[in-house]
Amino acid sequence: MNTLHPWIDAVRFDAAGLVPVIVQESGSKRVLMFAHMTREALALTAASGEAVFWSRSRGRLWRKGEESGHVQKVHGLRLDCDGDVLLLEVEQIGGIACHTGRQSCFFRRLTLDLGAEPIWQTVDPILKDPNLIYKK
Amino acid sequence: MNTLHPWIDAVRFDAAGLVPVIVQESGSKRVLMFAHMTREALALTAASGEAVFWSRSRGRLWRKGEESGHVQKVHGLRLDCDGDVLLLEVEQIGGIACHTGRQSCFFRRLTLDLGAEPIWQTVDPILKDPNLIYKK
Repeated sequence: MNTLHPWIDAVRFDAAGLVPVIVQESGSKRVLMFAHMTREALALTAASGEAVFWSRSRGRLWRKGEESGHVQKVHGLRLDCDGDVLLLEVEQIGGIACHTGRQSCFFRRLTLDLGAEPIWQTVDPILKDPNLIYKK
Repeated sequence: MNTLHPWIDAVRFDAAGLVPVIVQESGSKRVLMFAHMTREALALTAASGEAVFWSRSRGRLWRKGEESGHVQKVHGLRLDCDGDVLLLEVEQIGGIACHTGRQSCFFRRLTLDLGAEPIWQTVDPILKDPNLIYKK
């Protein structure tokens, strides 16, 4: 699919038509999550000013926050040197990006105590019960 | 390949045996680059305290900084909620992560001026001539 947008054509999508996207919070600079976009998702993100991804598990476009209300307002978008990874800078509405109710999906940190076998330790709190976020 | 390290077994590698890795600078909190690790690269990273990736283009282990001297000292390692993406927190020796001689690989930013067609604008300076970084 070609577009009339040279800036989108500059992005190198993979064989499946996807580009990986790192999402970073503008204020805290925390890395919130990692997802993918199709060409259409990228165009919709730019046009709406809110993050739209491609859900690989559901096989459809996924407007971040469509169920939770935790939308991501676009503050900036960067492209890496190879043109095949995006860095999306956002304001995270609600302060929660992860489906577990935490600020960031990267809430497990490896312990690096000398001599002991490392473990993945949960270091960030649940800010809101997911059952209350995804009430239907 | 099984290991005797349960923390490595907790990481979900893809069909090609790779896991994506976001590299973030501890001090500035800038996202420096994006790469991949194999199980072996991850084990070597933890054991040495310096980032080791899998170079998909070269088909071999790649000790970051092996040519440039711009090694990445590991300050922390995080795993996402799905267990299939790593966030590596580093001190970037030399202050340069990108092969173009810039601090970060994400040096192009989309202009988002109302009404105008966006373009990818280079917003970060070259800190060192790559010809001087990769002298042989």
